[in-house]
Amino acid sequence: MFRVTQPRSFATLRMTNKVLQMILVQKYGGSSVANIKKVKNVARRVVAAKRKGNQVVVVVSAPGDTTDELIDLAGKISKLPNRREMDMLLSTGEQMSVALLAMAIHELGEDAVSMTGYQVGIITDEVHGAAKIEDIDARRMKAELAKGKIVIVAGFQGKTANHEITTLGRGGSDLTAVALASVLKAKVCEIYTDVDGVYNADPRIVSNARKLPVISYDEMMEMASLGAKVMQSRSVEVGKKYDVPILVRNSMNNAEGTLITKENKKMEKVLVSGITLNEDEAKVTILKVPDKPGIAAKVFSKIAEGNINIDMIIQNKSTTNYTDISFTVFRSDLKRALPVIRKAAEAVKARGIQVDDNIAKVSLVGVGMKSHSGVAGKMFSALAEKGINIEMISTSEIKISCVVDGRRGKEAVRAIHKKFELGKKK
Amino acid sequence: MFRVTQPRSFATLRMTNKVLQMILVQKYGGSSVANIKKVKNVARRVVAAKRKGNQVVVVVSAPGDTTDELIDLAGKISKLPNRREMDMLLSTGEQMSVALLAMAIHELGEDAVSMTGYQVGIITDEVHGAAKIEDIDARRMKAELAKGKIVIVAGFQGKTANHEITTLGRGGSDLTAVALASVLKAKVCEIYTDVDGVYNADPRIVSNARKLPVISYDEMMEMASLGAKVMQSRSVEVGKKYDVPILVRNSMNNAEGTLITKENKKMEKVLVSGITLNEDEAKVTILKVPDKPGIAAKVFSKIAEGNINIDMIIQNKSTTNYTDISFTVFRSDLKRALPVIRKAAEAVKARGIQVDDNIAKVSLVGVGMKSHSGVAGKMFSALAEKGINIEMISTSEIKISCVVDGRRGKEAVRAIHKKFELGKKK
Repeated sequence: MFRVTQPRSFATLRMTNKVLQMILVQKYGGSSVANIKKVKNVARRVVAAKRKGNQVVVVVSAPGDTTDELIDLAGKISKLPNRREMDMLLSTGEQMSVALLAMAIHELGEDAVSMTGYQVGIITDEVHGAAKIEDIDARRMKAELAKGKIVIVAGFQGKTANHEITTLGRGGSDLTAVALASVLKAKVCEIYTDVDGVYNADPRIVSNARKLPVISYDEMMEMASLGAKVMQSRSVEVGKKYDVPILVRNSMNNAEGTLITKENKKMEKVLVSGITLNEDEAKVTILKVPDKPGIAAKVFSKIAEGNINIDMIIQNKSTTNYTDISFTVFRSDLKRALPVIRKAAEAVKARGIQVDDNIAKVSLVGVGMKSHSGVAGKMFSALAEKGINIEMISTSEIKISCVVDGRRGKEAVRAIHKKFELGKKK
Repeated sequence: MFRVTQPRSFATLRMTNKVLQMILVQKYGGSSVANIKKVKNVARRVVAAKRKGNQVVVVVSAPGDTTDELIDLAGKISKLPNRREMDMLLSTGEQMSVALLAMAIHELGEDAVSMTGYQVGIITDEVHGAAKIEDIDARRMKAELAKGKIVIVAGFQGKTANHEITTLGRGGSDLTAVALASVLKAKVCEIYTDVDGVYNADPRIVSNARKLPVISYDEMMEMASLGAKVMQSRSVEVGKKYDVPILVRNSMNNAEGTLITKENKKMEKVLVSGITLNEDEAKVTILKVPDKPGIAAKVFSKIAEGNINIDMIIQNKSTTNYTDISFTVFRSDLKRALPVIRKAAEAVKARGIQVDDNIAKVSLVGVGMKSHSGVAGKMFSALAEKGINIEMISTSEIKISCVVDGRRGKEAVRAIHKKFELGKKK
């Protein structure tokens, strides 16, 4: 009996040790692996994390501008390339990155194995170019980690149940990282980028912008969708859903970064977490629409059929029988959107459409807002004091957005930042 | 009964039609898809073949110098990159080509689907960088062909049973094409390259070199391994084994090309099919080796252990108790080979080694040779008449090779070509 018991308790001990060794997921964006020198830098960081006793899974994007270059190449062949073939083409970028990073890690004396989305078993739906992750098979990753290897996963890509290669769309590598962190029950998902973390305003616009040590998922989602380019809101949403702590850090230094996590009591004291600026949209107004029930529904369902994403919508009830409907679209979609919008306008017998492609959307975000009154008024006064006219307003529980003249967006951000005293403490 | 019979006979008719539609495999090398203009040219050729009523499977290499560029990138990270990761990296080149070609074919109005080696199911062994094909799953290809699609397959790559990506080594895309033609029972495997076919001598050396309309597998294998760079002998060997007719053609014109096929009666009338020149080897001599049985075996097994490929071997029995052993190795292997050879020389107590890296190997190939005497004598006289000294001779049933001074290789080819009256008929 003794002999049997002893090995068994050893086995238990070993298993306990394994459980104690925490899994860390790191994600490095394209700018972090843009050249060989940078790949070597990433390798050093990864190896350091491993040698601190972590089991490390690394998610990597395509090097530098590779994805854009491949899109250009395809554009020279076809104005509207087949989306399946586009995924076949684009997924090569990340595959290069993972192989090169594995080699660089080997050079530092650690064992590493690269894996495509296919090899991991990141199963997605069949929407090429914007696929959704349906399932992730963690078995091979866990087996490689258990062998002491660093696992390097190609971000942004997956496969369908029929072995077709898919991509997850822009920001897809972040999504890969957060999803892997979730299935692997990682202690944290580190997103490495070229800034020190999430700021309460863009430091290029507001010189004394402050880095936030911590921000809630909800705030970050608003910040992301409003134009803070650190992370896509989609990945933060998945992080929130599966409760994955996300740490945004700079791949070129050791700054502490910003932790994106659940809302907590400490956070509630903060009224406003940040101000964002989005200069990528255009405003479209459909003029003199008959003011009858069901007209707006008709307009926007026509536009949706054309696969055009719209953002803010404003409709003012008029005293006449007519109204104007305004909304914003991505400026990059404008060319494709206009014929669709014109058709929708004709369908409801509107007088015509008007386009303003020189607008800026300034937004104030903060979970504290919902329990404080007067925030909107304070924001509008900041703009009024500078003589900046507000063209559209839209609000949610934790954000207020104002559309202003495109030439005055940065000025608006600075005015609001100052009004709310968000600058660094001197 | 009538109702049942009629649809059934229709079905039979349709099946018969399908069987009558022949499968054609085409392979385009890297130079044929080096830029977008060339990809479009290939697309036009493929579509033309399809519209002639063929079911077309296309195998494509990586664009232009992509493979070499990726090798360079890896070389900047590691002197000896992990071979698994190297395959992960290199296989991206062909994946780009197939996606771009599919898009270009779509633009011409034909349906096409690209497939990685993985997606086809080209199963190989686990020797990364030089994998051997073990099995090919033709089901998905056949299903896509039956839907009227052109199937585009990434050459050079496969996968192991454990889903690891492998590559087949240099010339691997030819091998993919011939192997696919075999499993699909294609009527012919067309290898597109940048020359019009197989010549009886290099046209850049012999101005009136003649293109061969047909050549046997055996002759082509000798030609290939002796330095004619049109096809690797490995692919021809597979073609011979599975009886796949191979047609070598120029991707930039409609010249008829050269058919590589089984030896036939018509061929036997031809004495000599071609002359090749190999300037990529170096000669190594191990000096003053004790002339005892088993010594050569000892030397060459030591060299084989070092993974050095050797080509010609000459050992002259001497009247003393010592002998010299000479052989040729690829010049590109020389640096790696010399320490191994030195060790082998020491092990048999030789006096030392001597290297001549300025040699040329001139070879005469032809199935007709084996039934004709005097061919060797005629070849040696051609060289003697020009005062070209022969350093080594080696012969097989269908070829005679002579090593000469590297500076006189081209002259030797011209002299032999003239002596055998191989030039174009005026």
